[in-house]
Amino acid sequence: MYLAKIHVTLKPTVNDPQGLTVKGGLHTLGFNGVHSVRVGKYIEVRLDEKDGKKAKEQVREMCRQLLANPVIEDFRFELEQIKG
Amino acid sequence: MYLAKIHVTLKPTVNDPQGLTVKGGLHTLGFNGVHSVRVGKYIEVRLDEKDGKKAKEQVREMCRQLLANPVIEDFRFELEQIKG
Repeated sequence: MYLAKIHVTLKPTVNDPQGLTVKGGLHTLGFNGVHSVRVGKYIEVRLDEKDGKKAKEQVREMCRQLLANPVIEDFRFELEQIKG
Repeated sequence: MYLAKIHVTLKPTVNDPQGLTVKGGLHTLGFNGVHSVRVGKYIEVRLDEKDGKKAKEQVREMCRQLLANPVIEDFRFELEQIKG
């Protein structure tokens, strides 16, 4: 069994209205030092697979096909072997 | 300037309908080895602050007050000093 820790983030050039809203909220709360906020996703996938190489390839395909939108998002992940 | 890399995740006992939906989607795409999926948030905050200790305290307060819902979510973060 593998645990994939996946980060999906907006590409740096893409506007992040959610991040702007959070930044505004933090300013309203008095956190005036906040310079910028970017909001992304953090996804944990537990995968029944014994072969680390196959697990890596599968997670990459999951990101490409469903978890990330390749037009506006980047993804990266780490794999960790866990007890099933 | 500090960059805070914040992870906000649902507490382990809390239901994650979004994660269940993603899991269903992955199964439909043929990734039958997927055992479970949990979806959280990954937030990057750039903070104008020179003192690392103060930066840490501020980010913790941001999480408590706005970024995480302490009833159902956990948060953790790392701080990294960056060039302003």
